[in-house]
Amino acid sequence: MPSTIGWSVSDWIQFHRDSTPDQSYNVLLSLVESLQISPKDPAWISVASEKNLKHQWKILQSKSDKLSLKLYGVPIAVKDNIDALGFNTTAACPSYEYIPQADSTVVALLREAGAIIVGKTNLDQFATGLVGTRSPYGITPNTFSPAHVSGGSSAGSASVTARGLVPLALGTDTAGSGRVPAALNNLIGLKPTVGVISTSGVVPACKSLDCVSIFSLNLRDAQLAFSVCAKPDFENCEFSRSLPANPLRHYAVKPRIAVPIDMTNKWFGDTENAKLFAKAVSTLEKAGVEVVPMDFTPLLDLAKCLYEGTWVAERWAATRDFFGTNPDEQSLDPTVASIIKGGAKYDAATAYEYDYKRHAILNKVHENFIDIDAMMVPTCPLNPTISEVQAEPVLVNSRQGTWTNFANLADMSGLAIPAGFRGSDGLPNGITFLGRAFDDYALLDLASRFLKAQYPEDNRPVGHVTDKYAGVSDELDEQIPSVNLDATVKLAVVGAHLKGQPLHWQLDQVQATFLERTTTAASYRLYVLPSQGIAKPGLRRVDPEVDGDAASIEIELYAIPTEHFGEFIAMVPRPLAIGSVETISGDWVKGFLCEESGYKARGTKEITELGSWRSYIEKAGEKSKRPF
Amino acid sequence: MPSTIGWSVSDWIQFHRDSTPDQSYNVLLSLVESLQISPKDPAWISVASEKNLKHQWKILQSKSDKLSLKLYGVPIAVKDNIDALGFNTTAACPSYEYIPQADSTVVALLREAGAIIVGKTNLDQFATGLVGTRSPYGITPNTFSPAHVSGGSSAGSASVTARGLVPLALGTDTAGSGRVPAALNNLIGLKPTVGVISTSGVVPACKSLDCVSIFSLNLRDAQLAFSVCAKPDFENCEFSRSLPANPLRHYAVKPRIAVPIDMTNKWFGDTENAKLFAKAVSTLEKAGVEVVPMDFTPLLDLAKCLYEGTWVAERWAATRDFFGTNPDEQSLDPTVASIIKGGAKYDAATAYEYDYKRHAILNKVHENFIDIDAMMVPTCPLNPTISEVQAEPVLVNSRQGTWTNFANLADMSGLAIPAGFRGSDGLPNGITFLGRAFDDYALLDLASRFLKAQYPEDNRPVGHVTDKYAGVSDELDEQIPSVNLDATVKLAVVGAHLKGQPLHWQLDQVQATFLERTTTAASYRLYVLPSQGIAKPGLRRVDPEVDGDAASIEIELYAIPTEHFGEFIAMVPRPLAIGSVETISGDWVKGFLCEESGYKARGTKEITELGSWRSYIEKAGEKSKRPF
Repeated sequence: MPSTIGWSVSDWIQFHRDSTPDQSYNVLLSLVESLQISPKDPAWISVASEKNLKHQWKILQSKSDKLSLKLYGVPIAVKDNIDALGFNTTAACPSYEYIPQADSTVVALLREAGAIIVGKTNLDQFATGLVGTRSPYGITPNTFSPAHVSGGSSAGSASVTARGLVPLALGTDTAGSGRVPAALNNLIGLKPTVGVISTSGVVPACKSLDCVSIFSLNLRDAQLAFSVCAKPDFENCEFSRSLPANPLRHYAVKPRIAVPIDMTNKWFGDTENAKLFAKAVSTLEKAGVEVVPMDFTPLLDLAKCLYEGTWVAERWAATRDFFGTNPDEQSLDPTVASIIKGGAKYDAATAYEYDYKRHAILNKVHENFIDIDAMMVPTCPLNPTISEVQAEPVLVNSRQGTWTNFANLADMSGLAIPAGFRGSDGLPNGITFLGRAFDDYALLDLASRFLKAQYPEDNRPVGHVTDKYAGVSDELDEQIPSVNLDATVKLAVVGAHLKGQPLHWQLDQVQATFLERTTTAASYRLYVLPSQGIAKPGLRRVDPEVDGDAASIEIELYAIPTEHFGEFIAMVPRPLAIGSVETISGDWVKGFLCEESGYKARGTKEITELGSWRSYIEKAGEKSKRPF
Repeated sequence: MPSTIGWSVSDWIQFHRDSTPDQSYNVLLSLVESLQISPKDPAWISVASEKNLKHQWKILQSKSDKLSLKLYGVPIAVKDNIDALGFNTTAACPSYEYIPQADSTVVALLREAGAIIVGKTNLDQFATGLVGTRSPYGITPNTFSPAHVSGGSSAGSASVTARGLVPLALGTDTAGSGRVPAALNNLIGLKPTVGVISTSGVVPACKSLDCVSIFSLNLRDAQLAFSVCAKPDFENCEFSRSLPANPLRHYAVKPRIAVPIDMTNKWFGDTENAKLFAKAVSTLEKAGVEVVPMDFTPLLDLAKCLYEGTWVAERWAATRDFFGTNPDEQSLDPTVASIIKGGAKYDAATAYEYDYKRHAILNKVHENFIDIDAMMVPTCPLNPTISEVQAEPVLVNSRQGTWTNFANLADMSGLAIPAGFRGSDGLPNGITFLGRAFDDYALLDLASRFLKAQYPEDNRPVGHVTDKYAGVSDELDEQIPSVNLDATVKLAVVGAHLKGQPLHWQLDQVQATFLERTTTAASYRLYVLPSQGIAKPGLRRVDPEVDGDAASIEIELYAIPTEHFGEFIAMVPRPLAIGSVETISGDWVKGFLCEESGYKARGTKEITELGSWRSYIEKAGEKSKRPF
């Protein structure tokens, strides 16, 4: 039986492809049998029984297209405030425990994609906390140090991912619950834009702000899981939102990323994390980013509103019926119970007043950050020990939320990634990229650039898995998200916009997706236009019967989101035009053409016989290399 | 002294242009002196003193560009919950009265545009009501019948506009306060998208939903006032929002407009307004609209949330400090005070729960209405008498809000317009168009089409002004909103897209704005392309020195919003292309060009000597008319 510790999603997929269904099942069974629940392993509240696993496997095997499923046979852990059929849901409160009647929407999507749910993970009760200590099922220790907290509230999901038991786990993230434990366990923690992953079937914390989050060892797995889970669910989820038809895939070549200008008193006595953050800023510069120091005060003020303001009443709204049943005190975490009951004291008028305050702050934020692409902040200022948290359970928790609490109030996408290890104790901490709503994929791309700059040798350690490195799995799949062709214009490019050519960046700028390399129908001629600057070809359609010779010319096809096409055409200079070009397969697409006044101008040279601009450039390059 | 009763904005502007400043001032003074305040005229709570007027006039005269101001010397009434320097603000509550330290943002914008504030108008206290009877300053009667209510809460503003005392008045509209009194007094009542007109300096009702509304006698004045007032104000207004760079100007040629499929029990015993609404539906069809009967139940459920739910706590948030001072009972309207105090009873958790409910309903609404451009609903079901309202102050009020209460909760733009007069009693009532957020200008355009279909003779009576008709003032100014060129692509069209030509609708569809008719540089030739369907020209740039004759060809320039250009280019067929065209003034703009394979195809005819496609079409038309 192979050890599956630290396997990425693609490791699992590869194994299943190379195995018989029985072999695959047995490895999953062996994994599940190796898992121990609280109190032996406080990260798990429940794990799949053999019967449960067999049932899941049977359903998966009954699917006709199973081997093409993106998550075929991939074991996934689910935070125990997210419903998954076959497991009770506890939200880490034994007296709250119930048997769900259906999968949550996100779990249903994962199963449709082939995933196997291996267990439910521990959390700060009712997802109220950033520490991982607030649970009757026990304290989840940090995977790097038993004396330190795992971070929370998605403590168990972070722990089992960091230990390499599963390649993916679901958490939730209202105030930082998906980001803080990612930072403290050397993980990727994707906190999507509010509503993009349905929260139907998730025990609410603050329903208007709750997000399902994704833990993974590497970026590519997070990207894949996000693409599976990000589906609209308007019927079941009040806050469901669709991603745009073609969401932002990446920022500009040199994006403007804001970092806090002033970190005074923001480390609360810690000295190591400041160094990690300073290093991250220089890595960001190395990655070709324009780092823009900015005043984050309005966002820090907003962060305070989350617990000092009325949003805690959302927690009360979600649980007051339960608290009304006078639940067993033993089953309650006293800190959590006291926070949630505090939500009962606010009146509705005050809730609206906090909403006004939020809007006033956001106006400032939008004004200040208008020409910023994204932000980079520390994920959390501290790596607290369990005893430090126990001594000051509210204070330490609140400090940990400094850079996470505001994100959902400000409707931002967020992605926590590792920033390396502290010199003093070898513990990890991280940074978080924050973007505009719906820029989740662009954040993944930014993170990929960042990690490539930090680990040019691809030797980034993942989670707390010995001898495992991210390798190329921090590079993204270019086919995700799949392009929505209905909302694009198909464009054939023939010259300076080809891959590797000097104007290709214009296609990047308008978020174009490469579709294929092909040729035109055999009805075209190609010219080199006279030019002072970048060399440009001119494509001319001819009628072979009338005009004589013509050829098939090499083209690349791109899909440009329709709403960005106007930006693109503004960059097309005369004598070039965008008309219709016939491909070799007889399709007509939009494409670059040249005016007659261009290809008949003095100095123009016909190169039809070369069949492609690339051949011309290569030949010209060879010529210019000749020393004599 | 001329009578200014019923003057439109352009009547006032024209008068001032034809007059000396002294004559202008004297007419305004005479107007102000003719106004009487409550109790003599309950529509006015205060009017400008001679000193106040003189002061305003002096400031206006000191402006350098005064005669070009859009509202130069135009008298405007302001609802008395909107701050205007020189007038106390009462919100129709004498004990609440205060001296504002600054103009509200909207009043400041009107004054910058040249307006003169002539007085402050009565309202349902704290803008809480749709009747116009809830004020210690007296009941504002309907302008058509002293026995009937004016509607409210913007009762006074509607009354003074309908009587023709001012061409424009500001109201507010949270639940229908700007629409209902417009309907009951035969006025235009524009309720803009929330946040588009700043509410800074407005006494809040429900701050997150409040809108400043505009009353006018005709559509053109509403359009002008809206263009003056719709400015972002992020620093002062929490809910301020910018219109898009180029907001929607009009819907498609045949827009899809939803109307309620089932009006059973929706008229509460009235029989006349049902007839007006049925007539409006047939007028809509006459106007070339596709009428789509739809189920409005989710929106009607949402409407109920406004007063049955927690939003009334926003009213309490706005006034609880005031009520804490134990104000004189005589100064309070008992119905209003009881409604507002009811807002104190809700807790914050319940406020969040109502927000969840709102979002769940809106998901349904968005799903159901996804392919609908706008909606048409009755503005209010009843024309109540004062005694009917006094007998059932809450019930009648609540019925009146059936079709208005949901609009701001659903983030819609709204425009109430007259629908004619009831056969039984000659009282007016109206319909309301509701659109998506930021579609305010498109609603005005839709209304203009509607009123043109209803009054093809331009003889629509305005307000309650004797012998005054809307005439062409229900037609809009095509220059408003002014196009934001930075966010457009300039396009030269030469043939079938010219005004009046068969493909011109494609420009309309992408919200293009006409800029000018001009010609190309003298370097082009024009051809008629062989075509089975719509005749199309081909434009070809030539080098006169090499290729011989060339000419200046007539073109029309349009500005197409950049985000819509992709939609446009998808409609351009081969052999046409969008390239760069040189205008006679030496500018290069994007424009239609033709491939050589097009203008050299068999059957092509050169028409360069005609100088324009239009000349060719006219000649061809003449030829086809010849009988022999």
